[in-house]
Amino acid sequence: MNSMEERKDIVCRHQMPAQLRFSDVDRFGHVNNSVYFALFDMCKTKYFLDVIGPSVFDRLAIVIANVNADFLAPIYYPDEIVIQTSVIGMGNKSFTLFQRALNVRTQEVKCECQTIMVVFDTEESRSARMPDEWKEKIIAYEQNGCLTRAEK
Amino acid sequence: MNSMEERKDIVCRHQMPAQLRFSDVDRFGHVNNSVYFALFDMCKTKYFLDVIGPSVFDRLAIVIANVNADFLAPIYYPDEIVIQTSVIGMGNKSFTLFQRALNVRTQEVKCECQTIMVVFDTEESRSARMPDEWKEKIIAYEQNGCLTRAEK
Amino acid sequence: MNSMEERKDIVCRHQMPAQLRFSDVDRFGHVNNSVYFALFDMCKTKYFLDVIGPSVFDRLAIVIANVNADFLAPIYYPDEIVIQTSVIGMGNKSFTLFQRALNVRTQEVKCECQTIMVVFDTEESRSARMPDEWKEKIIAYEQNGCLTRAEK
Amino acid sequence: MNSMEERKDIVCRHQMPAQLRFSDVDRFGHVNNSVYFALFDMCKTKYFLDVIGPSVFDRLAIVIANVNADFLAPIYYPDEIVIQTSVIGMGNKSFTLFQRALNVRTQEVKCECQTIMVVFDTEESRSARMPDEWKEKIIAYEQNGCLTRAEK
Repeated sequence: MNSMEERKDIVCRHQMPAQLRFSDVDRFGHVNNSVYFALFDMCKTKYFLDVIGPSVFDRLAIVIANVNADFLAPIYYPDEIVIQTSVIGMGNKSFTLFQRALNVRTQEVKCECQTIMVVFDTEESRSARMPDEWKEKIIAYEQNGCLTRAEK
Repeated sequence: MNSMEERKDIVCRHQMPAQLRFSDVDRFGHVNNSVYFALFDMCKTKYFLDVIGPSVFDRLAIVIANVNADFLAPIYYPDEIVIQTSVIGMGNKSFTLFQRALNVRTQEVKCECQTIMVVFDTEESRSARMPDEWKEKIIAYEQNGCLTRAEK
Repeated sequence: MNSMEERKDIVCRHQMPAQLRFSDVDRFGHVNNSVYFALFDMCKTKYFLDVIGPSVFDRLAIVIANVNADFLAPIYYPDEIVIQTSVIGMGNKSFTLFQRALNVRTQEVKCECQTIMVVFDTEESRSARMPDEWKEKIIAYEQNGCLTRAEK
Repeated sequence: MNSMEERKDIVCRHQMPAQLRFSDVDRFGHVNNSVYFALFDMCKTKYFLDVIGPSVFDRLAIVIANVNADFLAPIYYPDEIVIQTSVIGMGNKSFTLFQRALNVRTQEVKCECQTIMVVFDTEESRSARMPDEWKEKIIAYEQNGCLTRAEK
């Protein structure tokens, strides 16, 4: 995982609001940790629909191999939260996603999460090469964003 | 519960979008039934904050006594859903809420739900009279909406 | 829906524990209402697997048409909860389920729920006749239970 | 995080079944990733109640600082899952938890998760020293388990 310092500098082009539900809150008035992953999940699904298109889920699935999340400050209900998402690294069969939850008014960072995802062929039930078309679309989308800067 | 015919005519002034999550969907590709109640819950919390104000949760809680929901059509991910909410009846200590989930593009009604709620004094741990101020604010809000029409 | 008096007398043969999660609890320390339906859902799935067998989900789905639930007392974490389930009525294409959540130590009834379910042919996308085999298995299972008594 | 090799050898004394719900499953028939964290959460709450006692949540809260989870194989519904939990490291104000989800029949490991938790004083709203009593109880509990072996 990138160091905290490095992650602070990641600028994400993809950003969307995440609506909180009363049922997301636990006894302490905090949004429960498991909910963060439901929100990150929602936003990475949207990222792939936006960047690659609906064909993304035709035959290939994208499965999570590792999640590494820093919980920096609690989310309270009803904070206005946005989730930022970027692909920050790509290999042959896997890629790395960076996500950040922040309070849209205060800009306080609530959580930063790095996820390693693997491309999976659902018909053959095994990992698969990431299509070149996906790579090109992601690079094109992120060109003013994370991938370029990471390469500097 | 009002008949299906009667419910069809209920016009709700309060309406808000409900954001679906990938994790809301079950094996059949449908939003799971339990999620509807989390969405209705989110929207009735917002209704009370909007209509009565943040003081609503100071000392008095509002607890659910009965839920009666018709599931009319499945919700698919990622349908764009709005939830409509109206108070359609008020007693001394309880009131009745009507909620409708509909697809905002097709206007197809997905679910209609009537909820009986009871005002509860959290310090004395027993049901309580509904404050007159709440009743006035609700009537003022709904005046062009459900309560008036119900009285016709 | 049966009256509260009548429902009190329903004895259910099928009973299973429902494990509560810390994340099920809301700000008031109560299990959130939407969670009840996830628990009822879990237990009715188990009921059909136990009574009809795994073939139950081969081609026919069972979808919820109406839910009518009385919330009689809050569930606290970590109460030990069991869910009781019975089929209390059967028609041609639909049937009625009764479920009860109770605290296993105190025997306090927390929630009673009546659910109308419709048999659905997933290939033809329309409601379907309930197979005779299902009816026979349900009657055999419930014979010392609810169906018999309801017929008295 | 310990290497995969090292983690494989961690033997956990605390183990409990985690009941899956039909609503935990996503469109692919897999238990959704966010649910794993709800299950881990449930089991670490139980760990602290079992090992330290109910007083654990009197004034001090235990909050998550970092979660690092390897998803090794999908969980299907209705797999029989147990969650194993051990404290594998303790500092002054924080400690490290190891958790493993495994299929109880096949013994296949589904997920391994390392969590850094911080002791938090809810009255003073800041991190706090971990009470010596907690450390002693944890060491006593784990003595034939992870902590001892880690020190070898």
